[in-house]
Amino acid sequence: MRFSCGRCGKSYPIDGLAYKCSCGGLFTLRKEGKESVDLPVSLGETNTPLLRKEIYGARVYFKMDHQMPTGSFKDRGSVVLVNKLKEMGIGEVVEDSSGNAGASIAAYCAAAGIKCHIYVPESTPAAKLKQISAYGADIVKVPGPRENAAKAAQEAAGKTYYASHVYNPLFFEGTKSMAYETYVQMGFPDTVFVPAGNGTMLIGAYIGFKELGFLPRLIAVQSENCCPLYNKFYDLPDAEPKPTIAEGIAIAHPPRLEEMASAIRESGGSVMTVSDDEIRAANETLRHMGIYVEDTSAVVVAGARRHFKNGINNMRKVVLPLTGSGLKT
Amino acid sequence: MRFSCGRCGKSYPIDGLAYKCSCGGLFTLRKEGKESVDLPVSLGETNTPLLRKEIYGARVYFKMDHQMPTGSFKDRGSVVLVNKLKEMGIGEVVEDSSGNAGASIAAYCAAAGIKCHIYVPESTPAAKLKQISAYGADIVKVPGPRENAAKAAQEAAGKTYYASHVYNPLFFEGTKSMAYETYVQMGFPDTVFVPAGNGTMLIGAYIGFKELGFLPRLIAVQSENCCPLYNKFYDLPDAEPKPTIAEGIAIAHPPRLEEMASAIRESGGSVMTVSDDEIRAANETLRHMGIYVEDTSAVVVAGARRHFKNGINNMRKVVLPLTGSGLKT
Repeated sequence: MRFSCGRCGKSYPIDGLAYKCSCGGLFTLRKEGKESVDLPVSLGETNTPLLRKEIYGARVYFKMDHQMPTGSFKDRGSVVLVNKLKEMGIGEVVEDSSGNAGASIAAYCAAAGIKCHIYVPESTPAAKLKQISAYGADIVKVPGPRENAAKAAQEAAGKTYYASHVYNPLFFEGTKSMAYETYVQMGFPDTVFVPAGNGTMLIGAYIGFKELGFLPRLIAVQSENCCPLYNKFYDLPDAEPKPTIAEGIAIAHPPRLEEMASAIRESGGSVMTVSDDEIRAANETLRHMGIYVEDTSAVVVAGARRHFKNGINNMRKVVLPLTGSGLKT
Repeated sequence: MRFSCGRCGKSYPIDGLAYKCSCGGLFTLRKEGKESVDLPVSLGETNTPLLRKEIYGARVYFKMDHQMPTGSFKDRGSVVLVNKLKEMGIGEVVEDSSGNAGASIAAYCAAAGIKCHIYVPESTPAAKLKQISAYGADIVKVPGPRENAAKAAQEAAGKTYYASHVYNPLFFEGTKSMAYETYVQMGFPDTVFVPAGNGTMLIGAYIGFKELGFLPRLIAVQSENCCPLYNKFYDLPDAEPKPTIAEGIAIAHPPRLEEMASAIRESGGSVMTVSDDEIRAANETLRHMGIYVEDTSAVVVAGARRHFKNGINNMRKVVLPLTGSGLKT
């Protein structure tokens, strides 16, 4: 396995300190033959349930990824990334996160005996900080917006391996498993709504379904208060991001924006935005069905609702991945 | 299916308002032939992972029941109880709980469209109240100790079905599935440590393993600050309960105390108590392995530690069920 620059094609070792190309391009994973990652380090991953339900008069399939070990789908990425790090003998890492990715990397590093430093924005909710530090990770609080935590982690990455859920392609090698599981559980869906912040779910779904040979329509949903992908996709001017209850996807400048837009385009999909009020209402719908997720996870339900209200009937097999547990808030 | 008094044998319908016998005895479930409960109402139950790990120099198997849909093993009981209620056409229930059972019953009632009223002690932690009310359940706060909430629910049970995780045998018909799953995953364990409050896990494990044909040694662990089963089992005087961080099992007068003691005796097991300091240390051990559970769940690890320290070597296949998610605290 090697990292390969998505822009100029230059090749890098996966155990080095470089987390992007000297040309500025981002890495993809290049495998030789049938290379795969062994997973001896485990916190008890299972195939998450695929729950068939009716909402707003339509049948949907909820992919219950908030039931993963640390309460977030990020575990799909962490288990693959951290197992590979362990295999390569890496003993210490840095990562930056607004919460769930940090908790997930911290948990798997604890299980693997890898020391980890999680850089978080000062505004990170207390419950998420508590979870990260429970695993014994070192927390570094960085003032200012989310980007500042990323910058600080990237500086540290000059000396310590960057276990990034955004830059490191090994993480997407994990998040793609959502597509594989879904396929085994229901065959190919025609439409998958995905919450879009840094694109870990979106790009993972894209890679997984591509490998399987059929790419469903990917509909990315963002908060209208922070929607760089929406603006990019429809050639709208950049807007100053505002706070949103969908804090897990409030990413003003996602590094893989191009890649996200191109995945959606190739899938024949689209990007949409929803308001905080719509997200709140969607989450109440879920909760009154007995499903407890954080607001960020409810954006896909708010997005689906808009489609269903317009009587879209070319969606017969709709998957809504639920990404984070309501217990985290 | 009928309820049957464990003391005098009198038979009752399972859809009636009686939750115990007129003689004061508690109900058990009597099945005719191969009766079982269908489970169309689902929140995405899976077989929880059985994770093999080393702790304190010994190999153990963690049964990851905190990964169930509402973050607690109580879902095993709720899914069976609520499905049966739905089948019988019961539209409204009452229940009392110090937290996890209430959240679980509330979630499954939401999924089933059954109205529910959860009676909780005023001291119930805010995060647990938030979860219960998120599902749309009606919360009734009752001042005073845990018992007062039970009394209030039992008064209401004169008019409304009592979906009790303690009195209703249909709940134990669900919690027994832990034994079945464990057997499929590893064969028969020789020892199962269980946290003991009202005995929902203990009695469930007892019923399940008995049905399977082999009863492992059941070791019940209680907080030394609230240990009625320990006192009963070893003929010690009753002690005034004190507060403990293991709040999920802080039950001063468990209605099924006799049944719990007799299950342990039959299994060749024992009862032990652990201190809050031991519980805290055990939970830190778990967290630094990447496993995030509430303090109540760590009592079994604290209990196992004491045994392992004493060099007990007749325990080769030890199961430690982890009952509630750390995200709940």
